[in-house]
Amino acid sequence: MAELTKIALDAMGGDNAPVEMVKGAVDAVSREKSIKVYVVGQEEVVRKELEKYTYDKDRIEIVGATEVIETAEPPVNAIRKKKDSSIVVGMKMVRSGEADAFVSAGSSGAILVGGQTIVGRIKGVERPPLAPLIPTEKGVSLLIDCGANVDARPSHLVQFAKMGSIYMEHVMGVKNPKVAIVNIGAEEEKGNALVKETFPLLKEAKGINFTGSIEAREIPHGQADVIVCEAFAGNIILKLFEGVGAVLISKVKEGMMSSLRSKIGALLVKPALKETLKGFDTSEYGGAPLLGLKGLVVKTHGSSKAREVSNSILQCLTFREQRINEKIQECIQADDSSDE
Amino acid sequence: MAELTKIALDAMGGDNAPVEMVKGAVDAVSREKSIKVYVVGQEEVVRKELEKYTYDKDRIEIVGATEVIETAEPPVNAIRKKKDSSIVVGMKMVRSGEADAFVSAGSSGAILVGGQTIVGRIKGVERPPLAPLIPTEKGVSLLIDCGANVDARPSHLVQFAKMGSIYMEHVMGVKNPKVAIVNIGAEEEKGNALVKETFPLLKEAKGINFTGSIEAREIPHGQADVIVCEAFAGNIILKLFEGVGAVLISKVKEGMMSSLRSKIGALLVKPALKETLKGFDTSEYGGAPLLGLKGLVVKTHGSSKAREVSNSILQCLTFREQRINEKIQECIQADDSSDE
Repeated sequence: MAELTKIALDAMGGDNAPVEMVKGAVDAVSREKSIKVYVVGQEEVVRKELEKYTYDKDRIEIVGATEVIETAEPPVNAIRKKKDSSIVVGMKMVRSGEADAFVSAGSSGAILVGGQTIVGRIKGVERPPLAPLIPTEKGVSLLIDCGANVDARPSHLVQFAKMGSIYMEHVMGVKNPKVAIVNIGAEEEKGNALVKETFPLLKEAKGINFTGSIEAREIPHGQADVIVCEAFAGNIILKLFEGVGAVLISKVKEGMMSSLRSKIGALLVKPALKETLKGFDTSEYGGAPLLGLKGLVVKTHGSSKAREVSNSILQCLTFREQRINEKIQECIQADDSSDE
Repeated sequence: MAELTKIALDAMGGDNAPVEMVKGAVDAVSREKSIKVYVVGQEEVVRKELEKYTYDKDRIEIVGATEVIETAEPPVNAIRKKKDSSIVVGMKMVRSGEADAFVSAGSSGAILVGGQTIVGRIKGVERPPLAPLIPTEKGVSLLIDCGANVDARPSHLVQFAKMGSIYMEHVMGVKNPKVAIVNIGAEEEKGNALVKETFPLLKEAKGINFTGSIEAREIPHGQADVIVCEAFAGNIILKLFEGVGAVLISKVKEGMMSSLRSKIGALLVKPALKETLKGFDTSEYGGAPLLGLKGLVVKTHGSSKAREVSNSILQCLTFREQRINEKIQECIQADDSSDE
């Protein structure tokens, strides 16, 4: 039997912890034989949740962590002070090799800080980007960075492009993924200072398929596989995607409920519509990896339910099987030696 | 009879020029008695279009301009060299007072450059922002700036907040409009360098109802009336709004057409749905004003059809009646004298 992929799961993070986290762990081990999940959190709380289910006892294990980091806590302080929190304990397991990956729906800030300070960066990686998949007309695109690297520098964006390409090619199976930089026009001379400086560097960068600028309007149409931007822009794109989607769907529902005639129509339309819109549901694609770390850290939505947690756990399997971190390391270090 | 509001319309700009521009002009004068439209463009072309309609000949006049500025032309050069283009001629009419406003669906870059160099800024205004209305769950919000002021400074954003408040209050009739700054979290300590510097200035600014940060997710829910950001972020927000909307609506249609059952349902749902989604159609709200100029310049979508052109023309009426520019001038100059 092949070695199990070991995932530490934060049982205490997110709006639906611990109920949906534990349920997600149980779901994941039942879907996939080659993983083991360490459920990290307050022992009694986790135990009580686990008692609700039957599961392979060899492949779910509780790891005690008495403290909980809240979403509103200043992240640097939280990571430093709460040594026995589920985030710190889970990340230490990744650093020591006890776990291959850590999955959390908890505080983004704490996960980003912990990723850098506890798990640590791969040598040569300047900033670890948070890279969620966003649904498009054609499938999914990787939006990189949506993390805490606001006011990033051009060299950071070039590394994001490279790490993102590796992820899309080897985890998502997209051949020669198209890389584009978010811009306010298609022409090279357009953009803010950061984009204007980064554009020529991306054009010259080896090993990526850079296709130029992408306007925000084109992103949902799936014109690029890897969408490069600094975190402030990335955060706007990610959140607005969710916001516009939610409002439009609610408008569609409201429209359908506005007359007797439309209500009858809605009953007939509903099943087909549900199926089509599923492709636009971000929870189907698991969480966002924090790339460039010595180990894998995955951030799932704060509002994650069991299905998304389970998908995020399974995503770690491909990441490890495809040796993504080794590939990132090779790519970044090849650059370092050719640059110097 | 009260004095007519005189609007110069660029007949040559936009994807649907001159056909939809001229049609929009005819529509506007038939909807509203107190306006006169100068249709600026190549005389023969415009004349031929106008011949299709019957209209009040006293209130539509052709103004000749032999040249056309293309969308792809570098704007500074275009404005400097093409002295007899519809944009330059129309803007000169505003500067000289022959027209109160200029409406164009042409090159954004050229309109922004022309606005600053030909029409000129109101004394004290550092940068004129382009401020479109975006549809929300509750109505509309003003997104300011979506123009060319990338890499703006904090003081620019404070002026945007003030000018935007005046517009929403006096043109759109929103009492004490809520002002928010686009940010990646709700807390004051979050954000990039620009937002962190601007936040305390907005808190102290007099005459605006500043409510703090707004995350992109909340924008479509209509949580603020005036949404302040620099142009790179604003452009992303505006374009993504359109992009996500277009893709989702096409997904909804696709879902409805996917089975016989759903097709029947779609027939029943369609009229109600159309009515509801109309509120989410940006063309209903006319164009985006370029605020802070000595005269009014309105940029409508490049893809504008007659209805949007007509709405953009009528919008100029309220702008003039409400003496928006005088109000902006008073507000900015009051600041100048209190600052110094």
